[in-house]
Amino acid sequence: MTTTTSSPATATLPPLAELQQAYAELQARGLKLDLTRGKPSAQQLDLAEPMLDLPGAGTHTDDAGTDTRNYGGLDGGLAIRRIFAELLDVPVEQLLAGGNASLTLMHDVVAYAELFGFPESPKPWAREETVRWICPVPGYDRHFTICEALGIEMIPVPMTVDGPDAEAVAALVADDPTVKGMWVVPTYSNPDGAVITEDVARALVSMPAAAPDFRILWDNAYAVHHLTDDEVTSPNALALAAQAGNPDRVVMFASTSKITFAGAGVSFLAGSPATIAWYKKHLSAASIGPDKINHLRHAMFFGSADGVREHMRKHREILAPKFEAVVQILAERLGAYGIASWTEPKGGYFVSLDVAPGTASRVVELAKDAGIALTPAGATHPYGKDPENMNVRLAPSMPPLDEVRTAMDGVATCVLLAAAESRS
Amino acid sequence: MTTTTSSPATATLPPLAELQQAYAELQARGLKLDLTRGKPSAQQLDLAEPMLDLPGAGTHTDDAGTDTRNYGGLDGGLAIRRIFAELLDVPVEQLLAGGNASLTLMHDVVAYAELFGFPESPKPWAREETVRWICPVPGYDRHFTICEALGIEMIPVPMTVDGPDAEAVAALVADDPTVKGMWVVPTYSNPDGAVITEDVARALVSMPAAAPDFRILWDNAYAVHHLTDDEVTSPNALALAAQAGNPDRVVMFASTSKITFAGAGVSFLAGSPATIAWYKKHLSAASIGPDKINHLRHAMFFGSADGVREHMRKHREILAPKFEAVVQILAERLGAYGIASWTEPKGGYFVSLDVAPGTASRVVELAKDAGIALTPAGATHPYGKDPENMNVRLAPSMPPLDEVRTAMDGVATCVLLAAAESRS
Repeated sequence: MTTTTSSPATATLPPLAELQQAYAELQARGLKLDLTRGKPSAQQLDLAEPMLDLPGAGTHTDDAGTDTRNYGGLDGGLAIRRIFAELLDVPVEQLLAGGNASLTLMHDVVAYAELFGFPESPKPWAREETVRWICPVPGYDRHFTICEALGIEMIPVPMTVDGPDAEAVAALVADDPTVKGMWVVPTYSNPDGAVITEDVARALVSMPAAAPDFRILWDNAYAVHHLTDDEVTSPNALALAAQAGNPDRVVMFASTSKITFAGAGVSFLAGSPATIAWYKKHLSAASIGPDKINHLRHAMFFGSADGVREHMRKHREILAPKFEAVVQILAERLGAYGIASWTEPKGGYFVSLDVAPGTASRVVELAKDAGIALTPAGATHPYGKDPENMNVRLAPSMPPLDEVRTAMDGVATCVLLAAAESRS
Repeated sequence: MTTTTSSPATATLPPLAELQQAYAELQARGLKLDLTRGKPSAQQLDLAEPMLDLPGAGTHTDDAGTDTRNYGGLDGGLAIRRIFAELLDVPVEQLLAGGNASLTLMHDVVAYAELFGFPESPKPWAREETVRWICPVPGYDRHFTICEALGIEMIPVPMTVDGPDAEAVAALVADDPTVKGMWVVPTYSNPDGAVITEDVARALVSMPAAAPDFRILWDNAYAVHHLTDDEVTSPNALALAAQAGNPDRVVMFASTSKITFAGAGVSFLAGSPATIAWYKKHLSAASIGPDKINHLRHAMFFGSADGVREHMRKHREILAPKFEAVVQILAERLGAYGIASWTEPKGGYFVSLDVAPGTASRVVELAKDAGIALTPAGATHPYGKDPENMNVRLAPSMPPLDEVRTAMDGVATCVLLAAAESRS
């Protein structure tokens, strides 16, 4: 479980003038730092550098005897699918390997729903008056962008330390057939690092839904992205959904974007046999098959599921100190005042920081004017609107450790100043 | 210009019984040959085998200073775009490099039109009662599949040796706003090898269209795929369209699928600045950027546009003898009887064979029963329906030369028998 730190106040905020002075000094440093995006650092990318020699001239046939260089095959390379079937705990027949982005797979699943509908859809979603979608908040901005781009109305529900608020979700889904889907990031969720519990997962896959074609897009983006020895695994949603009699409800996604190369990884889609058939049917009009050479390259590099696990421990060595620095500086600088709380994630790519209500956008503005780029306030909410204007997503993976420290110290100054301003 | 061979009859068909005997002997050989798909052969794929070592560990920064391993950038690698901008004669700012299939780009452009419409569209196409699309025939089955999958009604127009019948197209487009698009394969068209003339290109890009959002998807799949010393270039459609005051009408596509690796190439989309902006806007919801490492790999392998041209001459050495064999055997076996005509393409991947009217499906069936797989009759027409049932697409690239000879000799036997049957 993710720890959320929110100490009661043991000290009063320093005077406004003192914080303004501290901020002026911060500005005077002329920093140029960036905590905006969950990108792997060059040091992390270097871990996969040997892949740039792979598969190597003369090696182009995969386990199934396929010439990976030629056209064909919508399923993707068997060897890489076997490795990720083990990691994701899904049958290999129900797992497809795709191109370089699970974001594209998610977009295309929703786009196919709009254009064609799911097998049980009364009509293509584009012909419905209204399609609505449940978005746990804080959440991932690019999930929200997919909904917004495709004209889907978003309904926020709160995240908890155990995953989305299942009761709130069930109430929304039970009677309203326009509510046709929801996002879930089951492991080390973006941005708050929560891992969904089996109880919550079971509730979501078994709750009655008024829409016959209700879907949960289960974005397991951080399935193996641990930051501690406690390598948690989220519950097997596909199996739970099948047990609950809703085998088609969950469509699962994953990728190697934050394992090998962020721009040149392999994406995965898993679902029920009916979902796989539906997806491939529509994909077949658009695709000549994924890049099977890249699949072979990845399979050779990893060797096995254990190879992936081993590789991820190297990422952890680079990432964990950065996350520790974020949490440590937040505790040191803000812990006494009771004006902020933050997550201490055991994996994933983000720390979710709640500042004094109404001040998140001011914190981001102050940081920007001091040369520290933060994700825009509101980005973790649908339509970019955080009703309490208090959530800030911190992404410490990309900058070197010393820059993370410098940036976070500056962020703390901005959080304090914004809080003091709001009280003055 | 493609030569179409169609000699007048100088001999009468052999007797049915004799042809039946020849066919029985063909069947007795127990062949297992395949002329169905325009796939490169293993020998052709071997030409790019050194790419499997590229870019090589330590090499991951592109010309623009971008770390190709990380997220970001919808335009694609600058170096590979420069090379193909020269080859396709388009400004590099108007050329995007994408994933491994131009088919996906074409599908997505039409899907975006369905979901969102083009900038001038009165509404998204999915909300229109009827959307119609002009399909020159014979044509490419996967173009037709995109239309059919997206619910677009297809209208066939004849291909000529100069490209699509521009008068027929202009008449369809002039008054009917439901006619919103057409396919063109400008260079060495699939399957008949025609290269569009400048007159036809100019007519298509300048004709008045009732639909404000009329588009021509200009699939330049075989731009550099020459089979002779006469390395023809199709007219610059984007420039002609801009001159005609219809800059957004043409969206051009190309790829390296039949240059490097069919399953792991690079695709390209070119269009007006407005088209590029429209496409990127919608792509941005679905993509974290294309595989820039593969772009770098390709740029390193080619070095320059001349590198591509040089590479294509090696393909020609492998392909030209196969095409020569097809044409030679057709001439030897069928030339005297006036029952068939065929193209003698100067590039591309296909020979288009017209057999005795009403017998194409019988030819394909006879061939199949003799162990020779041919593209289904009708595949070169929308909905798989060739009204005259006479066109057969021959794809000789994949099998070795001796198998091409054996298969074509068998096909000739089938063509003769089907013709004799139809007269008896």
